[in-house]
Amino acid sequence: MGVDVPDLIGGLERGERRSLARLLTVVEDGDPARLRELIAAIYPSTGRARVIGITGSPGVGKSTLTDAIATELRGQDRSVAILAVDPSSPFSGGALLGDRVRMQGHHADPKVFIRSMASRGHLGGLSFATPQAVLVLDAAGFDDIIVETVGVGQSEVEIAATADTTLVALAPGMGDGIQAAKAGILEVADLFVINKADRGGAGQLEAELRGMLEMGHALEEPADGREASAGWWPPILRTVAVRGEGIPEVVAALDDHLDHLEAAGRRDERRRERALHTIREIALAAVRRRVTDLAAGDDRVLGELSGQVAARELDPYTAADQLLDALEAST
Amino acid sequence: MGVDVPDLIGGLERGERRSLARLLTVVEDGDPARLRELIAAIYPSTGRARVIGITGSPGVGKSTLTDAIATELRGQDRSVAILAVDPSSPFSGGALLGDRVRMQGHHADPKVFIRSMASRGHLGGLSFATPQAVLVLDAAGFDDIIVETVGVGQSEVEIAATADTTLVALAPGMGDGIQAAKAGILEVADLFVINKADRGGAGQLEAELRGMLEMGHALEEPADGREASAGWWPPILRTVAVRGEGIPEVVAALDDHLDHLEAAGRRDERRRERALHTIREIALAAVRRRVTDLAAGDDRVLGELSGQVAARELDPYTAADQLLDALEAST
Repeated sequence: MGVDVPDLIGGLERGERRSLARLLTVVEDGDPARLRELIAAIYPSTGRARVIGITGSPGVGKSTLTDAIATELRGQDRSVAILAVDPSSPFSGGALLGDRVRMQGHHADPKVFIRSMASRGHLGGLSFATPQAVLVLDAAGFDDIIVETVGVGQSEVEIAATADTTLVALAPGMGDGIQAAKAGILEVADLFVINKADRGGAGQLEAELRGMLEMGHALEEPADGREASAGWWPPILRTVAVRGEGIPEVVAALDDHLDHLEAAGRRDERRRERALHTIREIALAAVRRRVTDLAAGDDRVLGELSGQVAARELDPYTAADQLLDALEAST
Repeated sequence: MGVDVPDLIGGLERGERRSLARLLTVVEDGDPARLRELIAAIYPSTGRARVIGITGSPGVGKSTLTDAIATELRGQDRSVAILAVDPSSPFSGGALLGDRVRMQGHHADPKVFIRSMASRGHLGGLSFATPQAVLVLDAAGFDDIIVETVGVGQSEVEIAATADTTLVALAPGMGDGIQAAKAGILEVADLFVINKADRGGAGQLEAELRGMLEMGHALEEPADGREASAGWWPPILRTVAVRGEGIPEVVAALDDHLDHLEAAGRRDERRRERALHTIREIALAAVRRRVTDLAAGDDRVLGELSGQVAARELDPYTAADQLLDALEAST
């Protein structure tokens, strides 16, 4: 309501921050017609930004680390957008208190933009919205886009699918932090950062991590997403982000990784993977919508099937087959 | 490998705990052919158990509360299965240390079964696996199945879709606990429990919650899932689960809610909603699989589209349309 997408795109092209913010709200709201219009219009202007993913468990100091990296990048006169994706929060973005507090660290710097994004419960969720929000920030002309997300379950994999380089942050004394994150982080990390490294236990954490990496290297065939990293051994760096310690080295390592991707001709591979991820999520959201429409539609196919399944006249797999048949017949 | 589903179902029917555990691993693994075989075979034997959902933020004492409720139900000679679903953990179930520790509280009681379930990253995730795990526990003959999940984002909604009665647990002094959970909990709760009620702030928490409920009641049209609760005003109870205080009252309130559903003829409605949810998740997982197959298939439709999108020759929405066309042509 009251959202004129072409008008906002005009504003985006003129570098208006308010238009950018409102377009990100369009992405968050997830209205398919508006999103299609938006993405189709801006798509030719995208593909220039570097996308950095930063993930890690709660408490490792991700936000501080992200802000410190942003400050370092600004020192190199690069413009930076931070997209903080929180799969555990149902909050909407835009006006988050946290954003405002974080923005203060960057004063009125027009070349830093920070935005939180939450799932508003719309179809497809954050795995649908995040790559499209990145496209909007890309079209807005930021040199670097940092996607920061708390590492829970699938989110590490999602972030890696969106980023050129994925940084996994850890901290000593988080107990089973590594253990819990293990399944996800080894596969997605291009770079490990042990933050809060002034605490006891940083050395042990690094040793454990190195052991896991070596074991993983020895035991596992590279997974699909891993091909792009062939020839790259994820470095393990230490930081005390709150004091800026170790941050220049992290930024240098991010650059190294990008150089590696370029030199190995693998950056295009990452771009294709990212495109694949985006297409798939858009397609799945469309299917999800169709299924929901079938549930609400006049014929109420799904309603009838549910009644039969609830009455144990039909098992849910047979019902799902019939639902998919109905779905195809309806398109 | 080495999994004989009919054999395990035989064991399940004979009440063998090991067969039950292995069938839950089949669910967790998510192999579609095996799952279809399993669910179709057991489905006629399901629909008898009461399903209780328990959700809440980390730190409110969900596990302790769940265990205390299970103990109380055992005192009424009801058999109880607890399915602890953790969307934030990539761990596999079965051998979790936490399960073993928790089982000790129920000694060798054969009428209590506790199992953690985690997303193994398979297609569809926990929203696909959870309702099917509940069916297995239902077929195993448990009177009550408690699905316990940490309340993050979508998970409250998922749990409500699987349960007859959804209990939302809170605790004083959790700061923005209510705020963060707000969007989800008001819609799904049939029952609120303020645990750790011996701490200061329980009264204030209850007052806040009551205020939110009244505001929600005044402002909001009932959402779809809410219809089933018409005429039911979620009670707010207080417990100190670690000492068993307030637990009989919670169990009585769970019974009251079920009576209410039955009396209002609404339990069948919940069953239909649960069936709808299950069918939809199975169908969506199937579509997701087909999309992935298209990416890996000989024709590599998705691979080609990704290349064009990465090269900015095509926008991702148009590519998604073409992917869905290819999907339909291939079935």
